[in-house]
Amino acid sequence: MKKQSPSFSITLRLRYPNTVGQLNQIISAVSTAEGSLGTLAVVSSNHQTIVRDISFDSRDVEHAQRIVEAVSRVAGVEVLDVCDRTFAMHVGGKIEVNTKVPLISADELSMAYTPGVARVCRRIHEDREASFEYTIRANTVAVITDGTAVLGLGDIGPEAALPVMEGKAALFKVFGGVNAFPICLDTKNTEEIIKACKQLAPGFGGFNLEDISSPRCVEIEQRLIDELDIPIFHDDQHGTAVVTLAALRNALKLVGKDMDKIRITINGAGAAAYAITRLLQAVGAKHIVLCDRKGIICDVPSDGANLVKKWLAENTNPERLQGGLDDAMVGADVFVGVSAADVLSLDSVKKMADNAIVFAMANPDPEIDPDLAARHARVVATGRSDYPNQINNVLCFPGLFRGVFEVHARVINDEMKIAAADAIAGVVAADELRPDYVIPSVFDKRVAEAVARAVASAAEATGAARR
Amino acid sequence: MKKQSPSFSITLRLRYPNTVGQLNQIISAVSTAEGSLGTLAVVSSNHQTIVRDISFDSRDVEHAQRIVEAVSRVAGVEVLDVCDRTFAMHVGGKIEVNTKVPLISADELSMAYTPGVARVCRRIHEDREASFEYTIRANTVAVITDGTAVLGLGDIGPEAALPVMEGKAALFKVFGGVNAFPICLDTKNTEEIIKACKQLAPGFGGFNLEDISSPRCVEIEQRLIDELDIPIFHDDQHGTAVVTLAALRNALKLVGKDMDKIRITINGAGAAAYAITRLLQAVGAKHIVLCDRKGIICDVPSDGANLVKKWLAENTNPERLQGGLDDAMVGADVFVGVSAADVLSLDSVKKMADNAIVFAMANPDPEIDPDLAARHARVVATGRSDYPNQINNVLCFPGLFRGVFEVHARVINDEMKIAAADAIAGVVAADELRPDYVIPSVFDKRVAEAVARAVASAAEATGAARR
Repeated sequence: MKKQSPSFSITLRLRYPNTVGQLNQIISAVSTAEGSLGTLAVVSSNHQTIVRDISFDSRDVEHAQRIVEAVSRVAGVEVLDVCDRTFAMHVGGKIEVNTKVPLISADELSMAYTPGVARVCRRIHEDREASFEYTIRANTVAVITDGTAVLGLGDIGPEAALPVMEGKAALFKVFGGVNAFPICLDTKNTEEIIKACKQLAPGFGGFNLEDISSPRCVEIEQRLIDELDIPIFHDDQHGTAVVTLAALRNALKLVGKDMDKIRITINGAGAAAYAITRLLQAVGAKHIVLCDRKGIICDVPSDGANLVKKWLAENTNPERLQGGLDDAMVGADVFVGVSAADVLSLDSVKKMADNAIVFAMANPDPEIDPDLAARHARVVATGRSDYPNQINNVLCFPGLFRGVFEVHARVINDEMKIAAADAIAGVVAADELRPDYVIPSVFDKRVAEAVARAVASAAEATGAARR
Repeated sequence: MKKQSPSFSITLRLRYPNTVGQLNQIISAVSTAEGSLGTLAVVSSNHQTIVRDISFDSRDVEHAQRIVEAVSRVAGVEVLDVCDRTFAMHVGGKIEVNTKVPLISADELSMAYTPGVARVCRRIHEDREASFEYTIRANTVAVITDGTAVLGLGDIGPEAALPVMEGKAALFKVFGGVNAFPICLDTKNTEEIIKACKQLAPGFGGFNLEDISSPRCVEIEQRLIDELDIPIFHDDQHGTAVVTLAALRNALKLVGKDMDKIRITINGAGAAAYAITRLLQAVGAKHIVLCDRKGIICDVPSDGANLVKKWLAENTNPERLQGGLDDAMVGADVFVGVSAADVLSLDSVKKMADNAIVFAMANPDPEIDPDLAARHARVVATGRSDYPNQINNVLCFPGLFRGVFEVHARVINDEMKIAAADAIAGVVAADELRPDYVIPSVFDKRVAEAVARAVASAAEATGAARR
């Protein structure tokens, strides 16, 4: 049975007789229908009637509807309005563009706009690098998608992807102080996406690629890294890899195992799995085996169309294991799932080594029920906010770009990603480390600051910083 | 001699002995060097020394430098810092992206981002029109340029154009409450610009094209109007035309002449002149003659490459006048200049009809010194803020797009532009009308509201409104 969730939260505006017991009946109707009650605000009242806004969480749209019907059946109650709080929050969009300059006097106008602005334009025309100082390029990232792999919804198109990109932009600002603006492209063609990004580059300090389907996203990212001089970051790949590494660092401390000794099984062979594999190898992991729907990846695919799978076949599975996910789990120290709901059995987890680590990160439903996995595994993490150890990219991208902009970095290299992971891991002190606390909360304010500092230092140390 | 301008404003931080007469010597040095003094703030002081921030306006960079040197030569004065206020205002850019949702609790996060946002995405996937309600498309315009015709600076490229586009975005918000974001494209190819705009369309409610050179801008705008379902507005054309019409409406009231009777001479044959011509014809103007650098436009150019000039040749100059600007001025009731500095002589103005109207709008320096023109013309207007009757596009675009978004208009048609012009003109009451007050101030708060209301009504009346 699903839990009641604030993502299915409804506010009802009700008018009912101002008599003893009426509110009780309403509350009872919500509770009996298994709604989870929230705020009960009074809008207006007199001796005869009272108007209240009553909020509740439900399990899904049908459940919410049943609760509304139950309330409307209470004698004397009139439902004035049914407000779906999630939709209400989205009306008009979730972000806005504001001016940092008041522009209320003629003097300000003549500095921020014509004629004064012309001097700034001329300076940038003489030295393009000055655009990183005197424009939004100093601290602004484009969140770019083509809408082909949005959340778990798949190819829903650029318009439908916009609410996610706006949410991402909001997170950039709230958690990292970075300006971000969504760009939803009406093309799925790899070359056209690359071209569009290159045409947009003069207006941005960096690109955060988002929800572009694999393996196109890998090629698009690499081409943009090669052909542009601003930092490019495909969050579904590297954000996931950084936070996974952060959680793994702490989990390994807890169980006393070493990165270069452990056996790691990764289920899913898309862009995220590819980036996780590369980052774990960069910090010394030697025994990584990947599985896709067809089983363990061992042989290079004969058609060679999917460059990601080709690379994985050539660079993982040193013992050339064959078989299914079950086989890959035998003796594994770490399971990393970036695949689909319920594909991992408890039996498979039982075949893992002692002190097993299970990161079941499929969204919204993990590869295995985390409570079930915890029967055998020592450390369990998921992508969900309602379980301990949430592996959430928001721990990485806001602080990462803040660090990038602080030193005006040209690229985001492996050293910077590793520094970000170590900074995230380091927020959990050694004496705080527990199986259900290997990764900090997304609301831990220290994370973005620590990540920014670490990324900026790593950029300076590796020559990626422009200043 | 140029005037001192806030666009060349400097703040000096000075340390000097805290003795009687020191400040007088500093002020005297600035004044002698012809700096225009502003604020004189105390930063810190003790018995021995005092530190002050002293601001002054100058005529240009060299003049500012001379003033700084004059101050530094005052005995006892130490210049700690020289701050160019225009550049200081631009550091880090002039706009920022903010969240409208606090995102400080897990509940908010699960509504604004995953998992709640998925429901909004699905709704838009089912009905693309819902993107105009639940995303920033409701109230967000892209300010798009290729950097080929920026202010009077010409083809300075997309990076150098960004400060202007940011300023425009700031004006959209401050004056119209509309979100605007700059898009500076790294291509000058007409087809590529059209393609890029079409690819960007899913993320915006409308496009404001800006500073794209003529005649490409006309083709780009028309193609986008034909091929997209969001409103497209090339401000250099239609913004200028709307505000010109507004000023002309009031000027004609003042001199008691009728639109269909007057003879209008327009100097300049670019995109703005083209749009002004079309809009004036739409409200009944019959006698319009255009001049370019070669003189009166009469014959259709044989090469036919420039579609704008071809259209102008075919649709203006009904009497087939020939000759130069001087010839076109004989008996003209109205001169409209969208050309270059000092191309109109007082002799030419003297050849105009009685109660002549001169709109000399070249930026930053008008076609004729307005004081000179006023010796003969009854009404004189320019694009400058330091003379009366400033014809400034900011009177139009913020309110226009606000009206467009209020009724979610698909297009911006002539009726909406004319309504905007009449609304701007209407802000100056009949009994306030004077030769030096035919157009309201850019800081008049009533303008944007009046324009928004009029545009929304016109959109509804002409079927351009979606709701």
